[in-house]
Amino acid sequence: MSSVIELLKSHRSIRKFTDQAIPPELFKDIVQAGQAAATSSFLQGATIVRVTEAEKRQKIAELAGGQAYVASAAEFMVLCADLKRAGNYCAQYGKSFEGDYTEQFIIATVDVALMAQNMVTAAESEGLGICYIGGIRNNPGPVSELLELPKGVYPVFGLCLGYPDQDPEVKPRLPVNVILKQEVYNEEGDQTAIAEYDERIREYYRTRSGGGHGISWSEQVSTLLAEKSRPHMKGFLEGQGFKFR
Amino acid sequence: MSSVIELLKSHRSIRKFTDQAIPPELFKDIVQAGQAAATSSFLQGATIVRVTEAEKRQKIAELAGGQAYVASAAEFMVLCADLKRAGNYCAQYGKSFEGDYTEQFIIATVDVALMAQNMVTAAESEGLGICYIGGIRNNPGPVSELLELPKGVYPVFGLCLGYPDQDPEVKPRLPVNVILKQEVYNEEGDQTAIAEYDERIREYYRTRSGGGHGISWSEQVSTLLAEKSRPHMKGFLEGQGFKFR
Repeated sequence: MSSVIELLKSHRSIRKFTDQAIPPELFKDIVQAGQAAATSSFLQGATIVRVTEAEKRQKIAELAGGQAYVASAAEFMVLCADLKRAGNYCAQYGKSFEGDYTEQFIIATVDVALMAQNMVTAAESEGLGICYIGGIRNNPGPVSELLELPKGVYPVFGLCLGYPDQDPEVKPRLPVNVILKQEVYNEEGDQTAIAEYDERIREYYRTRSGGGHGISWSEQVSTLLAEKSRPHMKGFLEGQGFKFR
Repeated sequence: MSSVIELLKSHRSIRKFTDQAIPPELFKDIVQAGQAAATSSFLQGATIVRVTEAEKRQKIAELAGGQAYVASAAEFMVLCADLKRAGNYCAQYGKSFEGDYTEQFIIATVDVALMAQNMVTAAESEGLGICYIGGIRNNPGPVSELLELPKGVYPVFGLCLGYPDQDPEVKPRLPVNVILKQEVYNEEGDQTAIAEYDERIREYYRTRSGGGHGISWSEQVSTLLAEKSRPHMKGFLEGQGFKFR
């Protein structure tokens, strides 16, 4: 196994950081490593808004559901799907903008995620810790106002970077055979494998530092899908120009 | 700069592969490195369908717009956003399934992309080359039928893996200052920077092996956004149960 594969397998989210700043050259390297990820149709449909102002950080921390590390991490940024930058050129080349299809929403969203995951790997390879902040989608409108995001741009998630001040365990993932299918989608054996995995996750929550709720994977994730999850997202996105045509 | 950052920055898509197979243990490591990526709300909403049957590979190559390397790469798989696996447990815990909101679509799609990019980094760290195949969204219905994808599952993109039989250049990315904003979204200076970048891209296409069309970045991407891009996606996704509520 390469050391890179070991690095990837050792990922865990960090929610407590030291005060140590990230050197500017390293920060730039991390962003450029992000940019080097594949991008669909060469769109480069991701934009990063780096937030350093303490008051703005504090507001976003609250808007994200009270996540203090948004304010305290060495770096916090919002990763945005951006169809505006490319869309600006439609008029210049005498074309009309048609970038509000579901497909283009997917392309830009995937571009952001690929870039972000490269940034995460780059950061972790230098001893930094990271935490994705999906919680900004609790209040995407106010977050977008704070960052002055124009139409054609939406905040997909935030990202905290900093030097770790904690050392949590790696959280076990589903057995490979459950997520890897051969030739066709087939659920044979999944229920048994997931039942065993559920036990491992209960144990993980029971024993990890900080204690835990002892809830299984299947119970947790079924809750997510039994919720009207962030039902404001559709209207918010349409307002930003993503029309899901 | 860490060797990992150098590795990330050296990415380019590979579209010509040798016959060499990928050792099964390495393939499994690559998948597990993918699984180790962050996952929103612990959903683990990504499923891989690995395709080895030659005839099926050939069909998917055609459905993706005639991309021969889909058939010839050592490994080809389709990465799917999967709300079914978790959704199965709603009934078991006495809850009704509400997993058809735009938010849950985003969560699962991002999960797939984060996993995929970790797989790509793992693969490239072992000397493999990769190519994402967004072209499967040309014909998502027929691809889903071939793979027997049930409701709650959709194919986000394909991924080819194999040992490279070509050595293309790295494609220059937008200047960092264009994609990295400070505090707010601000386009100051972008037009000038993009004009210079456009020249670099024209030059890249003119000089790269295989020749090229000499088209600028802005012209290329404005074309993408002036198209009714894969207008079937919305209807296809709704049919798979992603209702964009």
